[in-house]
Amino acid sequence: MAQQQGARNLTVVGTASPPIDAVERVTGQAKYVGDIELPGMLVAKVLRARHAHARIVSLDTSRAEALPGVKAVITHKDAPKVPIWGNRTYALNEQVRFAGEAVAAVAAVDEETAEKALRLIDVKYEVLKFVLDPEEAVKPGAPQLFPDGNLEGQPRVLTRGDVERAFAECDRVIERVYHCPTMWSGGMEPRVAIAQWEGNKLTLWASTQAPCRVQTNLTGQFNLADSQVRVIASYVGGGFGTKSAAHVDETIAALLARKARRPVKLQYSREEEILDSNTRFETRVYVKIGVKRDMTLHAMDVKAYINQGAYHVRLGGLGNQATHIYKTPHLRTVQYRVHTNLPNTGPTRGVGDPQETFAIDSAMDEIANEMGWDPVEFRLKNVKRNGDPIARGGTGPEDGRLVTQVTDRCIEEGAARIGWARRNAAPGAGQTGPKARGIGVAVTERGNGGGLAGATVTVNLDGSVVVFYASTDIGTHSRTTLSMIAAETIGVALASVRAVAGDTEVAPYDGGSYGNRVLYSTGRAVDAAARDCREQIFATAAPMLKASAADLELRDGVVRVKADASRSLPLRELMQRRGRSVVGDGNVAQSQAEVNVERAAGAHFVEVEVDRETGKIRILRYISAHDVGQPINRTVVENQIEGGTIQGLALTQAEEMRFDPRDGRCLNANFLDLKPPTMLDFDARVIEPIVVDNVGEQGPYGAKGLGENPCHPGMAAVANAVYNASGIRLRRVPFTRADVLRALAEQRTGVSRTA
Amino acid sequence: MAQQQGARNLTVVGTASPPIDAVERVTGQAKYVGDIELPGMLVAKVLRARHAHARIVSLDTSRAEALPGVKAVITHKDAPKVPIWGNRTYALNEQVRFAGEAVAAVAAVDEETAEKALRLIDVKYEVLKFVLDPEEAVKPGAPQLFPDGNLEGQPRVLTRGDVERAFAECDRVIERVYHCPTMWSGGMEPRVAIAQWEGNKLTLWASTQAPCRVQTNLTGQFNLADSQVRVIASYVGGGFGTKSAAHVDETIAALLARKARRPVKLQYSREEEILDSNTRFETRVYVKIGVKRDMTLHAMDVKAYINQGAYHVRLGGLGNQATHIYKTPHLRTVQYRVHTNLPNTGPTRGVGDPQETFAIDSAMDEIANEMGWDPVEFRLKNVKRNGDPIARGGTGPEDGRLVTQVTDRCIEEGAARIGWARRNAAPGAGQTGPKARGIGVAVTERGNGGGLAGATVTVNLDGSVVVFYASTDIGTHSRTTLSMIAAETIGVALASVRAVAGDTEVAPYDGGSYGNRVLYSTGRAVDAAARDCREQIFATAAPMLKASAADLELRDGVVRVKADASRSLPLRELMQRRGRSVVGDGNVAQSQAEVNVERAAGAHFVEVEVDRETGKIRILRYISAHDVGQPINRTVVENQIEGGTIQGLALTQAEEMRFDPRDGRCLNANFLDLKPPTMLDFDARVIEPIVVDNVGEQGPYGAKGLGENPCHPGMAAVANAVYNASGIRLRRVPFTRADVLRALAEQRTGVSRTA
Repeated sequence: MAQQQGARNLTVVGTASPPIDAVERVTGQAKYVGDIELPGMLVAKVLRARHAHARIVSLDTSRAEALPGVKAVITHKDAPKVPIWGNRTYALNEQVRFAGEAVAAVAAVDEETAEKALRLIDVKYEVLKFVLDPEEAVKPGAPQLFPDGNLEGQPRVLTRGDVERAFAECDRVIERVYHCPTMWSGGMEPRVAIAQWEGNKLTLWASTQAPCRVQTNLTGQFNLADSQVRVIASYVGGGFGTKSAAHVDETIAALLARKARRPVKLQYSREEEILDSNTRFETRVYVKIGVKRDMTLHAMDVKAYINQGAYHVRLGGLGNQATHIYKTPHLRTVQYRVHTNLPNTGPTRGVGDPQETFAIDSAMDEIANEMGWDPVEFRLKNVKRNGDPIARGGTGPEDGRLVTQVTDRCIEEGAARIGWARRNAAPGAGQTGPKARGIGVAVTERGNGGGLAGATVTVNLDGSVVVFYASTDIGTHSRTTLSMIAAETIGVALASVRAVAGDTEVAPYDGGSYGNRVLYSTGRAVDAAARDCREQIFATAAPMLKASAADLELRDGVVRVKADASRSLPLRELMQRRGRSVVGDGNVAQSQAEVNVERAAGAHFVEVEVDRETGKIRILRYISAHDVGQPINRTVVENQIEGGTIQGLALTQAEEMRFDPRDGRCLNANFLDLKPPTMLDFDARVIEPIVVDNVGEQGPYGAKGLGENPCHPGMAAVANAVYNASGIRLRRVPFTRADVLRALAEQRTGVSRTA
Repeated sequence: MAQQQGARNLTVVGTASPPIDAVERVTGQAKYVGDIELPGMLVAKVLRARHAHARIVSLDTSRAEALPGVKAVITHKDAPKVPIWGNRTYALNEQVRFAGEAVAAVAAVDEETAEKALRLIDVKYEVLKFVLDPEEAVKPGAPQLFPDGNLEGQPRVLTRGDVERAFAECDRVIERVYHCPTMWSGGMEPRVAIAQWEGNKLTLWASTQAPCRVQTNLTGQFNLADSQVRVIASYVGGGFGTKSAAHVDETIAALLARKARRPVKLQYSREEEILDSNTRFETRVYVKIGVKRDMTLHAMDVKAYINQGAYHVRLGGLGNQATHIYKTPHLRTVQYRVHTNLPNTGPTRGVGDPQETFAIDSAMDEIANEMGWDPVEFRLKNVKRNGDPIARGGTGPEDGRLVTQVTDRCIEEGAARIGWARRNAAPGAGQTGPKARGIGVAVTERGNGGGLAGATVTVNLDGSVVVFYASTDIGTHSRTTLSMIAAETIGVALASVRAVAGDTEVAPYDGGSYGNRVLYSTGRAVDAAARDCREQIFATAAPMLKASAADLELRDGVVRVKADASRSLPLRELMQRRGRSVVGDGNVAQSQAEVNVERAAGAHFVEVEVDRETGKIRILRYISAHDVGQPINRTVVENQIEGGTIQGLALTQAEEMRFDPRDGRCLNANFLDLKPPTMLDFDARVIEPIVVDNVGEQGPYGAKGLGENPCHPGMAAVANAVYNASGIRLRRVPFTRADVLRALAEQRTGVSRTA
């Protein structure tokens, strides 16, 4: 990308522009799937099992079908015996594997009729024993969810060096376990899908991050060609990974619509959204860490249980954070991905990285404190820098070299901003009153998307520009940032660009909006498509300006001869004279090996106040320093950092999904009991984003992905700050007041009641 | 187009495939604009003037606005002072120029409320004198519709040779006048538009033939960029030209939606559709024609009055048929395009060509009969053949040479099929009973579309193909024929191709569906886009098959090395391995000069039975022989010929719009009185299409346009056959029973009461 590394004379990229669709969003004119009504559209409702584990013995839908107004009823007998994309489940299963699983669905003329029909469906179950704990689930004799057992494939094992020998070489070794429960992580908008058949063509509107994945699933479910399935996800009310893959609901809606021969809308309630989504999986991470006296991290042994619940979108576990961020010569990580009778799980913001960061960066802090080292100094000593080994394959042997990494600068800039030197020299030192203050740090990094990306860019006859991409804008403002890339590359004002997102029919295949990939990968596709446009424009302009295409430039909507600015032509006039639209095509597949060696770092610093009387942890100040490569839109970058930081902090406070051990049912599948934080819980003003100046190699204009990273460090940073404030060590999220008070009591009495 | 002229080994093009969207169409699953319901959508109704000519003195909408449920009322004060695209009218005018013109519009929560609101609008008019007759309208002292008078621009004059001198050289000269009244010519689906604003983005669903023209109009009306206006016309229930340009209704819907801040649907009633559409204009054509004894057509002088009505889409008058089809060394045509207080008019199937063919080919028949010549022989002697002069500029000097013309073969094949020799040697000869039979001929030709055409073609990851074009499929099955072109060019089965029509946002600029242009011009764009796809596919396949791209072929969905068929790769597998969609771009601008010299001919032969007692004319047999170049889909070609022929015949029978001379109001703005023919009026089995074998130069695979041509000759062919049967000459359509009986009476008495 020599062009990107040369003189950067950017006019649009790097500015702080308001979102181009801000007015539509705030005035309610932006159409979400829930806003769509189709003539003759039926309402779908889903009957859900109340057993955590059962087999359906009989299913009588005749009374429901006979109810006036009911147009279709489906059960597992109607579901194709084709697993939902990336999952083990069918659209409806004969075996129920979690309390809340769909067993039948009804389409009726209105909601009341549909709900009445659900009550008329007679299901007889053979109730089976269930298991909720991942470590219990892999023991002999545990209830089995699948014929091949509860373990998903082989354990994922990564080894480097000789861990056993290395621990013997260490000057200090500690062992700890860190626990994150199953946690809700959806968006404000519950899942919703509208299916409409026209002949053998299916149009599905869905609130999804990955329209092309949903399309792929539906072509498989119904044995259709790509051209016969159109998935549209124009506006999406948040996704965070829970909508990053196909789910059962889209297929259920399509099955009902096909059977009823009418359009069908299936809108999840909040309870359904919480129970039957791809929620954040429980992790139990055992960490053994060893250091040498010279402050080098020498060995790490990580054993993790990933509680996938009943079904799981096969898109990750832990991200092997430790292998990427720290130079650890001897390393072993073993991940057990286990099925239990909890609701299905999947990737949610950061996938397993927040949980892993919590474990690794807490353990790093613990051993630094035990050694009397400055945790920042310890990290700076051990973080990888450019040129250090990194796995080109993502995991496995470190056969590549890290590029454009600025982890150290994130740490240094964050430390300077918060005033790291102010921290308590020893935990709780000088904190005499009921309220103890302390400062903590945690660092993170992550790879950027990649995969198949596509976009087209059209220049209209009046010179206005439209960007088409099949990924969605899930609130990350990709409509705006991708339009900025097109504006910059073509050489027009942002105001003349509009973006059409999330329609599989009108844009080329694109992986979707997940994994830090839209800006990084789809952005490259937009850049390529815009270059294609610019070339076509120059080819048109050359004879008009009596110059060769290579001698032309296009800036501010005017094509000029570089050497003679008096020979120029406004794009609008050029297009009118050309009389044909310009269509640029930007399908790209980034080299995964090159993508994998370029990673984006972040360092979070937090100052907390622990109320030793109430157990409350208050965030006083929070610095989120991130490498985003070249920022495309500074406002969007700062919003993303703030949002992700809050989401990471939310995990420290609430959002645990709790289950009744007697029946496996979720006890808090509602916002009142789940307690996701609101505006009242966090003062966003305490969060200070730092955009660390940097330019990447693989993204458009050197941009890097950002979406996931700010969510990673929150748990570890707060735990480390609480330790610095009070000397208590929290190893399980959320950090409830009860946990804090219990730990303080243990600290006073010296008696531990926790692991 | 060497490739098209070489060995033609076609597998898809030229077959007779059922329409690819037949199931959607016949099961009602195809969505027309009327089928669309949007949440919160309002119903619009239009208040129409009952005066043929008036000035609005005052307009009080306050009572209507106060009515509960009324959300917006607009009048000429709300209409932008920007003429509707290609027209003189604003969306709403202060001066009323025909009885039925819109003066205000209301958007309300339901139809009843909207209609009630219309009755509460108080309009005070200053009534003005009106004029309905085009020849009266250009006389001094006639009521003036526009400040610059009633004549639209200068008369269109075309001269060649020296007409005055030439008539003196002729052996015979006759003068006649032929009259076609204002005639309805809409589709089954009345106009309908739905407008929805999202911020400053307007989406408009409309039943239109030319979404890009409607878009252009709306960008002008609202001062928006192309990217801010999306026009969608997925399925259209017939257009025939009346929907080939922007009309007031789309702007009215958009104005109401903007004012009400809610989506608005404006659906015309049948009466509104008849009154306020772009109907077929009245023509009065004076023909003076002179021949020499050697059967050469020597001179022709044509003077035509085009009654444009109040407003007129500036897209034509007569097509100068005589200049294109016959070698006429001395020629003059003068067209007066006149505004009168009749409803607005515009291009309808064939624009002015059916009327002109009626005049010219009746006069040709009259003079041939007077000279005792065989009308077929006379035509064959004088029709242009390949290499004869033709105007490269469409009109004006004949500076080019006609190519790929087969008028003579159309005449010969048609004559052979009907048994031309069977005709009465003299008019009515041997027809002794009450029912007299006779045979007539008329010939026609027409240029093909051209203009700006665009399409994109996408190949999905499973090898399925989608064709995008912004013109609409108005029943001409362009979805099918354009898909066939893509299938042929790429080398896949038609079953794997789908087409998306009529959406300005997802396809490049394309002129629209009119003037024989979709197949001919958009088809070229599709062909170009498909070639682009094929090249990209070959570039991907070359390394996989270890061959150069030039050595590859793609047939039946498999890429093969030409020289070694064992080295092959199914497209599906190739696309999966490629992992990126293929997007092909096919924007083309055909050279108008090349388009203009390639024309498509047709010859119609009809045998009629004239009932001398009832005046009824019965069609016994009708042969429609047409040059379509390379037929793309033979079924579609035959359907088009049948449909166009029936539409031409309908003009002989009914469809005249009649007006009360006392107030200028239309007397028959309903199907009952307008009497468009039904299935009961014509036995389609009497129509025999002949597809004359030919291959063109400028269209895809040598195809030519066809839509308009079959509508041209019907009036002349029937009039000529009636003459051959009975000796009476009909010079005004429709040929009512009263007209026939009157002419027969005149024939008996020798007294003429007609001109």
